[in-house]
Amino acid sequence: MSYKILTSDIIVDYLLKIESIKEYLEEGKIEVDEIGDGNLNFVYIVRNTTNQKSLIVKQAVPYLRIAGEGFPLSRKRMNYEIRALDFYEKLLPNFVPKIYYADEAMSLVVMENLSTHIIMRKGLISRTVYSNFSEHISTFLANSLFYSSSLYLDSTQKRKLIDRFNSNTELCKLTEDFVFTLPFMEDETNDINPDLLVEAQQLFKENEFKKNVLKLKYIFMTQTDALLHGDLHTGSIMINDDETYVIDPEFAFVGAFGFDIGALIANMINSYISHFYRSEDEVYQAWILETIREIYMQFEVKFLELWSQYPNSALLKEGFIAQKELDEFKAEFMKNIFRQSVGFAGCKMARRVFGIAGVEDIRGIEDKQKLKEAELMALRVGKDLILNYESMKNIDDLVGSILSHKR
Amino acid sequence: MSYKILTSDIIVDYLLKIESIKEYLEEGKIEVDEIGDGNLNFVYIVRNTTNQKSLIVKQAVPYLRIAGEGFPLSRKRMNYEIRALDFYEKLLPNFVPKIYYADEAMSLVVMENLSTHIIMRKGLISRTVYSNFSEHISTFLANSLFYSSSLYLDSTQKRKLIDRFNSNTELCKLTEDFVFTLPFMEDETNDINPDLLVEAQQLFKENEFKKNVLKLKYIFMTQTDALLHGDLHTGSIMINDDETYVIDPEFAFVGAFGFDIGALIANMINSYISHFYRSEDEVYQAWILETIREIYMQFEVKFLELWSQYPNSALLKEGFIAQKELDEFKAEFMKNIFRQSVGFAGCKMARRVFGIAGVEDIRGIEDKQKLKEAELMALRVGKDLILNYESMKNIDDLVGSILSHKR
Repeated sequence: MSYKILTSDIIVDYLLKIESIKEYLEEGKIEVDEIGDGNLNFVYIVRNTTNQKSLIVKQAVPYLRIAGEGFPLSRKRMNYEIRALDFYEKLLPNFVPKIYYADEAMSLVVMENLSTHIIMRKGLISRTVYSNFSEHISTFLANSLFYSSSLYLDSTQKRKLIDRFNSNTELCKLTEDFVFTLPFMEDETNDINPDLLVEAQQLFKENEFKKNVLKLKYIFMTQTDALLHGDLHTGSIMINDDETYVIDPEFAFVGAFGFDIGALIANMINSYISHFYRSEDEVYQAWILETIREIYMQFEVKFLELWSQYPNSALLKEGFIAQKELDEFKAEFMKNIFRQSVGFAGCKMARRVFGIAGVEDIRGIEDKQKLKEAELMALRVGKDLILNYESMKNIDDLVGSILSHKR
Repeated sequence: MSYKILTSDIIVDYLLKIESIKEYLEEGKIEVDEIGDGNLNFVYIVRNTTNQKSLIVKQAVPYLRIAGEGFPLSRKRMNYEIRALDFYEKLLPNFVPKIYYADEAMSLVVMENLSTHIIMRKGLISRTVYSNFSEHISTFLANSLFYSSSLYLDSTQKRKLIDRFNSNTELCKLTEDFVFTLPFMEDETNDINPDLLVEAQQLFKENEFKKNVLKLKYIFMTQTDALLHGDLHTGSIMINDDETYVIDPEFAFVGAFGFDIGALIANMINSYISHFYRSEDEVYQAWILETIREIYMQFEVKFLELWSQYPNSALLKEGFIAQKELDEFKAEFMKNIFRQSVGFAGCKMARRVFGIAGVEDIRGIEDKQKLKEAELMALRVGKDLILNYESMKNIDDLVGSILSHKR
């Protein structure tokens, strides 16, 4: 059907006309509540109060929800979210919410209500240990990246995948602007802590580091390795002790291997910095660092394990090259993914300091002195990763960088 | 209109119903001749014998023309040729034939008959000096690559450009197979000089060099720098003393900066080798080497000159970075284009030796001993470029490599 915005008064009638949804909710009294925390979209919980079954309904509007109709943003972003969720659900059904209904024309998706999970960022802030997280997310990363790459797909499949995501221009542009450009120069969108005005001014003049930001931005814009979530921070993860779900892939596109990994690591480092200054909980800090190490090491093992199963792909033809040299090629390939991940992690960290989008982990620190120190550490680590991503050898180098910037 | 194959008996009637063609040819007796040298497509000359005005008509059929209906190949390849010609005609009208009519549904293009130009490969074989060639082709390369890149386009324009060419899968796959894979391993499509069976066997076991071929193949498959012609050898150039025209861009896609440059250089080197063994004309050999140097150096100057005119693009925002570091970034960027070009040139040379598609410059050498020596030199140079592309610094290194492999 053609597009219309589902306001609270018409949403229930609309949903109950959809067979799969009616079947899931069953008979009873249906209530609907808007969840206020969607920045881009309208998000509702629809609940049958008779049997307590519930669903999440997410609809994109042709503007930025949080900013209003004066800030147009194509609702087609939902197409890419629907397509990415579809890809993930088929490949990794235990890592994304179950999709009950999706309609690109309506910019609408109806999915499982993850009622026993919380947004991981909130869990990290309240110092919850997720002992299975590194295992889960490394599986998600290795599988989603490998199976959408030219190391698995054939040439035709790969180009078809690119076709499905190539036009997600507006959201890619948001990343180009707000991750790789504006947070590192004078711009009205920046949100600078008044206590760090001098440091911001100084950063804006550091051109050596900006040279590497340009290199990474260029890789972001022109490298088509694999399907990316595109915004894989800890606010895009719903989690509990047993399960890890990835949500909100509206930034999805076919891009550089290291971008999702870098985004995730950056957000884990921000959490570490937050606890170093705020909670001073050393056990929790150690868990975060160990988790970062495990995520990367397990990602690498799992990715290489998948790769070893497929001797034929767009890139490889069985018999083309001897095993020894193939292994060397793979080792160099993985090193390149690692370096990219480090560089992207640096951009993702540094952009959070003075840019429009801070993270609650750090900006939520109430003590002004500690907030300032945490922001400065995030900036030091981010800059270090950006300046040195090309020479970092392994995840221990990255952890070493984090530790070296504690004051 | 829907697709039908234009056989000789219906082609004139068909064409004269098209206003722009009728207008160009004017009244008179119209004759049509098939030109036999199209490998992929049917090509006709349509001539008004009254006023001698003529046109070239090119139509793709849903198979490989030279091989017949048993070798299906999507006629959609003509869409990409039409789109690339359109891009080039708007940007560089003096470097492509004038297009009188194009119809994607009919897989048909009608264009200027370049009757005073010859295929450059033939001109090179007969030792014609084209003193304006380096000036012309460096302009073509610098402009076509720069204006289709993220250094000029904005993000939206760039993604729209990718959209128009992304599905040229079949022809990209031909390159993946016949430039980067099959000529370097046992394969029934290869065409090996019986005098070089031992050398072929040996090459197929050289895994260090294949590791670099894989790296270059991966760049070819996943890097979206700019719109490429995709098959820019000296057989895709029509030339005379004054003018240089690029034709046949059916392999066009958005790919790596260095690929067209590499293809062109490889074919110039093959011509050099041909004359080193066949004509032994040292003056002509020196002209070829100097032309290779000039092409690359002028490309670089022109590309940087264009870049300097556009401080804003998908990549750059004016004021983001100081001039000194921007210049350093550009210098490193250009070095990377050079290295890529060298690597691709190596693949393009090496694949011609044992692969399905030899070049007339070398395979046309009648003296068996000289043929063998020329093929071996092409192989040495190709391998050298592939093995060392990452450490070559400038075009003199490349010319040095060529000279060092003379025997």
